[in-house]
Amino acid sequence: MPGGAGVAHRHRDTEPRAAVATDVQPEHLPAPAAGLDESPCAGPAASAGDVVARHLHHQAATFLRALGLRAEDEREADRLLLHSARRIRAALHTYGPLTDPLWAEPLCSELRWLSETLSREHQHAARLDRLSAALHRLAAGATGPRATEDSPAPGPVAMGAARAGALLERQLTLARNRAHSAALQALGSSRFHALADAVAVLASEVPLAAAAAGPACEGLVPLADQAHRRLAEAAAALPLTRAGLPYNADTVQASLGPDLTGDLQDAPWHQVRILLRLSRYAHEVYPGGTGAPHDRLDEAARMLERHRESARSASAAASAARTPRIAPATAYALGILHADQRREVEAARFAFARLWQRSEHAGAS
Amino acid sequence: MPGGAGVAHRHRDTEPRAAVATDVQPEHLPAPAAGLDESPCAGPAASAGDVVARHLHHQAATFLRALGLRAEDEREADRLLLHSARRIRAALHTYGPLTDPLWAEPLCSELRWLSETLSREHQHAARLDRLSAALHRLAAGATGPRATEDSPAPGPVAMGAARAGALLERQLTLARNRAHSAALQALGSSRFHALADAVAVLASEVPLAAAAAGPACEGLVPLADQAHRRLAEAAAALPLTRAGLPYNADTVQASLGPDLTGDLQDAPWHQVRILLRLSRYAHEVYPGGTGAPHDRLDEAARMLERHRESARSASAAASAARTPRIAPATAYALGILHADQRREVEAARFAFARLWQRSEHAGAS
Repeated sequence: MPGGAGVAHRHRDTEPRAAVATDVQPEHLPAPAAGLDESPCAGPAASAGDVVARHLHHQAATFLRALGLRAEDEREADRLLLHSARRIRAALHTYGPLTDPLWAEPLCSELRWLSETLSREHQHAARLDRLSAALHRLAAGATGPRATEDSPAPGPVAMGAARAGALLERQLTLARNRAHSAALQALGSSRFHALADAVAVLASEVPLAAAAAGPACEGLVPLADQAHRRLAEAAAALPLTRAGLPYNADTVQASLGPDLTGDLQDAPWHQVRILLRLSRYAHEVYPGGTGAPHDRLDEAARMLERHRESARSASAAASAARTPRIAPATAYALGILHADQRREVEAARFAFARLWQRSEHAGAS
Repeated sequence: MPGGAGVAHRHRDTEPRAAVATDVQPEHLPAPAAGLDESPCAGPAASAGDVVARHLHHQAATFLRALGLRAEDEREADRLLLHSARRIRAALHTYGPLTDPLWAEPLCSELRWLSETLSREHQHAARLDRLSAALHRLAAGATGPRATEDSPAPGPVAMGAARAGALLERQLTLARNRAHSAALQALGSSRFHALADAVAVLASEVPLAAAAAGPACEGLVPLADQAHRRLAEAAAALPLTRAGLPYNADTVQASLGPDLTGDLQDAPWHQVRILLRLSRYAHEVYPGGTGAPHDRLDEAARMLERHRESARSASAAASAARTPRIAPATAYALGILHADQRREVEAARFAFARLWQRSEHAGAS
């Protein structure tokens, strides 16, 4: 078991739980930090470096186990690889001052490359699912008993919807297959083998900086708080008051504007999504510090995930509409689909704004 | 002054106010009933027939004055014609049991024909304004400084939006011109002259039923209450709880379904709009009875007016998209525009549901 030998003497008691924790959803708080749940600054003083190293050992072990799993269950293996790669990267990012920067920075950028390569296939599949479901919903009533009575043959609009669905399926399945090949190629590359070697090292030892020798509480809380603060600041800069007004129509404004408008408008929300993830992962490493309650962060993360997925699905519909020589009815259906997904973007912002403002008020009172 | 001689001895005091009242917006409570505002069942007992006849005299006088105004100010004349025709029809409908049905029913159907003929031109113009404004809003950012920097030439999407705008302008201007010709033709027809003669009779005498001889309070309140009750029942049958959930996406479901789905879904809301108008006009004749506060009904009426206008604008975008040989980019823009207007339909339902449920709760407490 890679890395196990080096750390077993320090936290033998947490080993069985750690083995279980890798089976749970990525949203779950992993086991290693659970022992610190009550009053993190009291008790036998673990050093800040110990806590970070323990987390990294655990994630690296998951990463390596996922590699072994690939032959049996590719999907689950990829999920675990992503799960641990994201957490290692986040820990190195948030608790960076505690580790050797010359070692951490290149590892971070390689993990980022791996995450992006691996997640792309799943993203294309999820986008196709989302757009197919939306088309189905938008054409609702087409299958109702009353509708079939009155219109036995599908009209041009229904034909357009069907063709739009077929076009999206063709384009996104192609993109998905390409992403799958790219992921396979990446996993067989020497670049990946070098990364796996670096993670294997991480499973037994973590190059720490001098600052990591201090007590966990003093070393970790300020860094975690910094992550929470960055999130709070970025969220406060969002137009939350406006987004909290239902049907403000902000997100559709970009629909017929230049391509860039939508991206510019969405970017701050995507940024908050990333900071939210960093804040949640920082909390997994060390549950002390300030920051919003964990369950509310999970909910907020789901909303911003929906925000991103809707925004990207809207873009996919828009780029499908740019396919040369499509029928006007197909383009019409794609226009409706695009606007529908932008409405979903607006709905996600509304839900996030309400949740965030509620938790702000709860925090203030 | 037609009709003035027959009624002047009964309400000489209200004449100057009545002359002013025709200049105000149709939403305003007209003057004739104002004297009954306090405690309608007390005071010198006017008969139910007196009250209805006074209202009809006043509206008929407005109608006839509007005819004289046509040479000077066609727009204002049409507005006044519509204003009085709608109120005469509503009064004959709500307080029907007080008038001679053999006379009232054919008059009602002729007034309906006139209202529809006259309002069509304005509706096409308003629809074009609404759709042009929506297209402008959807293409927002296209004129921003940052956008022009990055994309000096308009992209295919902006071209599509411009073409969609031109197509709608062409189609709706044509429809508007046709409606204008039809209105002119109608106003010169013998059918209209017969109607104007009937209204001229109404300005001096109203054929009343025997039931109209009783006191105003006993004769009018039950009939007005019936109108208010019909409204309350129809509104209660609407899916208000669902509509009060923001972003429920109900109204866009019909976008890619068969044409009928949208109409079926919208019909109960349009019906409530009509009942709301009848309830408001019944209140203008006789401000007693139950029913929601007048200002809230006005607000609710504006919301359902917006509901109807958005629904019809969405249909106009959809039928423009069925124009043969349009470019896919034009169809795409029309699809987005259609979905945008259906989103407006949803927003109007949301606002109405919130208002109505609030006034229900206020009424219950």
